[in-house]
Amino acid sequence: MVDITHKAITLRTAIAQAAVKVSSQATIDAINNKTVPKGDVFAMSKAAGLLGVKKTPELLPDCHPLPIEYTDIKYQINDLEITVFITVKTNYKTGVEVEAMHGASVVALNMYDMLKPIDKGIEIHHIKLLKKTGGKSDITNK
Amino acid sequence: MVDITHKAITLRTAIAQAAVKVSSQATIDAINNKTVPKGDVFAMSKAAGLLGVKKTPELLPDCHPLPIEYTDIKYQINDLEITVFITVKTNYKTGVEVEAMHGASVVALNMYDMLKPIDKGIEIHHIKLLKKTGGKSDITNK
Amino acid sequence: MVDITHKAITLRTAIAQAAVKVSSQATIDAINNKTVPKGDVFAMSKAAGLLGVKKTPELLPDCHPLPIEYTDIKYQINDLEITVFITVKTNYKTGVEVEAMHGASVVALNMYDMLKPIDKGIEIHHIKLLKKTGGKSDITNK
Amino acid sequence: MVDITHKAITLRTAIAQAAVKVSSQATIDAINNKTVPKGDVFAMSKAAGLLGVKKTPELLPDCHPLPIEYTDIKYQINDLEITVFITVKTNYKTGVEVEAMHGASVVALNMYDMLKPIDKGIEIHHIKLLKKTGGKSDITNK
Amino acid sequence: MVDITHKAITLRTAIAQAAVKVSSQATIDAINNKTVPKGDVFAMSKAAGLLGVKKTPELLPDCHPLPIEYTDIKYQINDLEITVFITVKTNYKTGVEVEAMHGASVVALNMYDMLKPIDKGIEIHHIKLLKKTGGKSDITNK
Amino acid sequence: MVDITHKAITLRTAIAQAAVKVSSQATIDAINNKTVPKGDVFAMSKAAGLLGVKKTPELLPDCHPLPIEYTDIKYQINDLEITVFITVKTNYKTGVEVEAMHGASVVALNMYDMLKPIDKGIEIHHIKLLKKTGGKSDITNK
Repeated sequence: MVDITHKAITLRTAIAQAAVKVSSQATIDAINNKTVPKGDVFAMSKAAGLLGVKKTPELLPDCHPLPIEYTDIKYQINDLEITVFITVKTNYKTGVEVEAMHGASVVALNMYDMLKPIDKGIEIHHIKLLKKTGGKSDITNK
Repeated sequence: MVDITHKAITLRTAIAQAAVKVSSQATIDAINNKTVPKGDVFAMSKAAGLLGVKKTPELLPDCHPLPIEYTDIKYQINDLEITVFITVKTNYKTGVEVEAMHGASVVALNMYDMLKPIDKGIEIHHIKLLKKTGGKSDITNK
Repeated sequence: MVDITHKAITLRTAIAQAAVKVSSQATIDAINNKTVPKGDVFAMSKAAGLLGVKKTPELLPDCHPLPIEYTDIKYQINDLEITVFITVKTNYKTGVEVEAMHGASVVALNMYDMLKPIDKGIEIHHIKLLKKTGGKSDITNK
Repeated sequence: MVDITHKAITLRTAIAQAAVKVSSQATIDAINNKTVPKGDVFAMSKAAGLLGVKKTPELLPDCHPLPIEYTDIKYQINDLEITVFITVKTNYKTGVEVEAMHGASVVALNMYDMLKPIDKGIEIHHIKLLKKTGGKSDITNK
Repeated sequence: MVDITHKAITLRTAIAQAAVKVSSQATIDAINNKTVPKGDVFAMSKAAGLLGVKKTPELLPDCHPLPIEYTDIKYQINDLEITVFITVKTNYKTGVEVEAMHGASVVALNMYDMLKPIDKGIEIHHIKLLKKTGGKSDITNK
Repeated sequence: MVDITHKAITLRTAIAQAAVKVSSQATIDAINNKTVPKGDVFAMSKAAGLLGVKKTPELLPDCHPLPIEYTDIKYQINDLEITVFITVKTNYKTGVEVEAMHGASVVALNMYDMLKPIDKGIEIHHIKLLKKTGGKSDITNK
């Protein structure tokens, strides 16, 4: 684990995304109309993601535990692809990139898990970091 | 949560994969030569993935807790892309697809976390189910 | 911990409830209209409760870990009181009463946590077991 | 999750209670005489409650993880009712109300779980916040 | 992880021990008289150990999750040495040796943690398996 | 739980050790040659130990949650005895002694768990604190 005892505390933000591709418009309609048998997919996956962000240091050995001060989860639908955007913030000595990416993966997996009974063709594409600020360098990916 | 009280116990297997793309051959070499500062990337990510598979029902609200009876994690390197293959087995009333997919995502995220200090351009592609057996239908994706 | 090595596996069900009392009709309206700033209170609290049921043996030292095979969470609104009903089922050697009661308490606490910014007068009343079946004796409370 | 990145750190305290009603004096005597088969009810439930307070952000999606700096658990017996008082303190940007209430609920549930074999009529009444200090407003309930 | 999908379910027991050596009779007296400031050392460490046994598969990557059906924790005082004996039972395809040993280590560590403020010279000696039954071979160590 | 609300934040370090004794040189060779069937013993046990340090406050009721800022795990082989050295650092109001000792015990238990199939005679000796700095008094044990 990297030694961060001498690092300064600064505001850190990270924005990550995951893409979930469903196989038919009926799935998108079921999500929007809240008729998926397991429940409201977006709200429940948001709950799972909020908890997932906080669980990151329990899963990744080298990840420092840190005070998550903000998490936001949003969804965007484009035809059959749903993009999950997740923003995480902290004031700490190290960044929240993997926390945001883990949160995005948990949201995507929970959507998969809830939709599996009504759609067998769901795929999870590129979990990636879109942006980070704070720390040695800001990064913006496209 | 789906009611599985009346379902029969059968052998279930699932194979999932995640693809991790690094940005230079130097990263692949550091993994193979075990010179990554945080430690042995494949062995430590395997440990994280074995634990991650077991943690799946703690992260996904509708996922039934079940007795993981086998997990195997393998890596395949093709140029700059490392594919993680994960196999999970159980004898239970429901399958282990999301467990395998969650394990694959944890392995990939841990590789990202360990490699981040030496490679800023890592991406995680398609986490997907390759195969499942047992249950109502066998599935083989390509 | 009670020794259950020689007990038979039978179907067990438990139904528990928790009552959450809010202080104004505006709070009920915000829940129903999904305008609570933290999100959809019923869907997110259901997600928290589904996970909470599964976490019970991590919190209560003498509680046996067991395979949760079904959990259902429902809400009923009567004036300013919201009653949470939670049903849990398993096929195992011991019952799911504390699992259902713990789930009910997590749902209620999460409603409190989500509603706190808009209503300072929320109270949680009687967490109780309504019914259990299976095991040595069936119980129905009123 | 509420964004607390710009909030100031101040001392926060919360006192919560839960009431556990048993059905006979024999139960109270068994607790006091430490003859309950599962063990010392007050000491073991205190251990469960101390751990439960720390687990709150793992259960409630919107709850910020924070450094628990003090937890105290006390019991008061009045006839057949046992009141659990729990005090939690932190120096942080947000309060510890739900942490105290969750801790109180875990203590009460653990008492229920340990006493269940000797008393079938136990009930858990009102889990409530008695007092909070720090933050925008102090609150004292009665 | 060893593949246990084809193994038979049999009764498995394991007995492990840990030895905690304190530095003065005053510490033993404080434990027996229940005057240790942090609380009742034996009862609270038993609670921690019961939970610790159940948490073993969350800590050891290759350890199969299994249904803990019985855990018992006993203490024996000989002069300044306290021996913790822990018995674990399950009906499953694999044994409970590491579960018993992990439970013993958690009990010992919690005793250390609770006694540290009153005794700076505490040591934890040999955590070991005393006996196992079930599986390919019974073992009795001395 | 000790009230630390008024304590100052200072740099704290702790070094702990655990000793694992194997029963034959063949076991040492299998570890060094990475031919143990369950995988690379040192790398995977390091991963388990890094996670174990962070899990300490989930296992010990009175242990304050704190920001682990550094953990390092090293191994030393002397004939048939492997000594695990673990260093933990934080800037906080209380020390990291039990975190280091718990981490050492998890590493040792994981080595036991991974080596069990090839060596039935493994023992874990003295888990102990070697050194602490920061806080009221520095301690160096031998």
